[in-house]
Amino acid sequence: MIITLTTDFGLADPYVGIMKGVILAIAPEARLIDLSHGVASHDVMEGAFVLSSAVRYFPAGTVHLGVVDPGVGSERRPIAASNGRHMFVGPDNGLFSLCLGDDAELHHLQNEDFFLEPVSETFHGRDMFAPVAARLAMGAALEAVGPRVYDFLRLIPLSGPPTILHVDKFGNLVTSLRPEDLWPDSVARIAGHEVGTRRRAYSEGASGELFLINGSSGYVEISMNRTSAADHLKVERGQEFNVESGRQKQ
Amino acid sequence: MIITLTTDFGLADPYVGIMKGVILAIAPEARLIDLSHGVASHDVMEGAFVLSSAVRYFPAGTVHLGVVDPGVGSERRPIAASNGRHMFVGPDNGLFSLCLGDDAELHHLQNEDFFLEPVSETFHGRDMFAPVAARLAMGAALEAVGPRVYDFLRLIPLSGPPTILHVDKFGNLVTSLRPEDLWPDSVARIAGHEVGTRRRAYSEGASGELFLINGSSGYVEISMNRTSAADHLKVERGQEFNVESGRQKQ
Amino acid sequence: MIITLTTDFGLADPYVGIMKGVILAIAPEARLIDLSHGVASHDVMEGAFVLSSAVRYFPAGTVHLGVVDPGVGSERRPIAASNGRHMFVGPDNGLFSLCLGDDAELHHLQNEDFFLEPVSETFHGRDMFAPVAARLAMGAALEAVGPRVYDFLRLIPLSGPPTILHVDKFGNLVTSLRPEDLWPDSVARIAGHEVGTRRRAYSEGASGELFLINGSSGYVEISMNRTSAADHLKVERGQEFNVESGRQKQ
Repeated sequence: MIITLTTDFGLADPYVGIMKGVILAIAPEARLIDLSHGVASHDVMEGAFVLSSAVRYFPAGTVHLGVVDPGVGSERRPIAASNGRHMFVGPDNGLFSLCLGDDAELHHLQNEDFFLEPVSETFHGRDMFAPVAARLAMGAALEAVGPRVYDFLRLIPLSGPPTILHVDKFGNLVTSLRPEDLWPDSVARIAGHEVGTRRRAYSEGASGELFLINGSSGYVEISMNRTSAADHLKVERGQEFNVESGRQKQ
Repeated sequence: MIITLTTDFGLADPYVGIMKGVILAIAPEARLIDLSHGVASHDVMEGAFVLSSAVRYFPAGTVHLGVVDPGVGSERRPIAASNGRHMFVGPDNGLFSLCLGDDAELHHLQNEDFFLEPVSETFHGRDMFAPVAARLAMGAALEAVGPRVYDFLRLIPLSGPPTILHVDKFGNLVTSLRPEDLWPDSVARIAGHEVGTRRRAYSEGASGELFLINGSSGYVEISMNRTSAADHLKVERGQEFNVESGRQKQ
Repeated sequence: MIITLTTDFGLADPYVGIMKGVILAIAPEARLIDLSHGVASHDVMEGAFVLSSAVRYFPAGTVHLGVVDPGVGSERRPIAASNGRHMFVGPDNGLFSLCLGDDAELHHLQNEDFFLEPVSETFHGRDMFAPVAARLAMGAALEAVGPRVYDFLRLIPLSGPPTILHVDKFGNLVTSLRPEDLWPDSVARIAGHEVGTRRRAYSEGASGELFLINGSSGYVEISMNRTSAADHLKVERGQEFNVESGRQKQ
């Protein structure tokens, strides 16, 4: 029974360790795996990207605890959900929406027997989500956490121009484009540069060359070999750009 | 058997991993949980705050290994201690003093059979504290580590004006005030601002509003909604401030 | 069965968590220990230093997964190796060469049954190294991963002037010198300073004093007490310096 943790807490504060203490007090055998605690503060979309990139690599039955929760203590619902293969526990604010299809089963956390009392208004990760994740990992039924709900908050699907979804530690620009979105002659225009060259491996890039590459997350990246494309282009997450091809123009 | 780790080592150097290797060579089944390795270098007070915030959430029998140890190799004593519920291993420099009451049982680490030989003068975390923590987690008696001692170094209790104890990753200013230290009309004066508004949840704060909130660590925080109060006020850890109320003035 | 992880991935991206998911799907009982994910991007030499400092503290049978891999997708070989006590899995680019003697046994990863299909050209850590490390931890024979090879890429041994191998989180300058390389009267000349004083413990240093100390990694360090020598001297990793003694001059 694996529980992964994804938050915007960072690792300097003890908040992540506290959640792990709460979990282990309930589920002493749980395997705790950090996906990322470096999500930008309050950035639900980035947390959703991290989760959607990573969860597929975990075995069936894994519980994913996610706490990017700027609305803690407000009316946003605390939920537990299943997509049939994995379970998810955290706020109903879109954080899990890239992992949950229309057939997901969601429950509203209302069973206070599963909470750490008293429940604070400031740290539901500790008081609600961690103990519920631990209970689910111990075999509690999803129905036991609270009543089923049939709607949940989805992040608005990406539309309009292509966007930089994520900048990774190497400065690779992970775009919102899937490989199949590009024609062979497609050229990305971003920050005054045209990027049309394709590379299969980062190490194939010539010195100083910007290229398009099918990244490991399943998205097209704008990258350089051993150099940060983000620094080179002075581009950050959220930047929009254009893609053109002769075929599209016709 | 859980061993938590709290240090000022950071995570870029292999020091934390090395201590874990030493522990697992002795206690292969130990569960290793990081509380924080982001304590400011040599900042015993910050380490003490991290430990005191977190240990209560761990089950009885947990061993807390703490290494914020600017005096390594000097006359400061290496100790193991119990508060009846948890054990603590590290330097006798105040790091554990917020977790240990007057009835704590302390022992001076002197049993060299428990050390990794040769003991260096520069890394007692690896050579003394990690192996002793592992032995305790494996069931060694506290008396086995060395003779009992009846004094220990305490951090000076906070007195004088209220202080910022900690700035967390979200920029919340954790003060030295407990909720019961405030009157209903108390106002904090800090960095040229007056903060009197109370909020129960961060998300209740209006845009740009500074407020007082009962934080999850048990202290009053000066915070903003989705904004760093620390950046807004340009305040750092250790900053003193004033609290006034009509009742106090009478 | 312990698997350590050393990468230049950082902890903000989910890459490390993804590798752990891949491992646990194959080896559910594996103990996963992070050595460092803060290696500078593409810096194989720094990764080699981290590994060589840490591996000796792990029990026999540990598998060390290392991914500092600027050549991913190129002709560099993926390998698994044994030095008789530990196993190593990652790229054949020198990363493990400080841990592998002339009698090491190396195999070229070619058994696709052990890979996560399809193998990407951009993330062999996920698709090749993590699953192979998991298989080895589960007891697979080293011969099963692919054919034995009898050469491997070694980092060029350090020659010429002494060098700063590593700057740790405290600002200690870890040099390439072993304690036995110094005469009692040896003086290091670095960044316009002469450093000749010896200290056994950091805490013995006077305020503002630079000194030489035998560091915990087995190398001589240039350090200060509770102060960053790196900041004080404005010195970074890779800096060369000189050592002189009266005896050498004769």
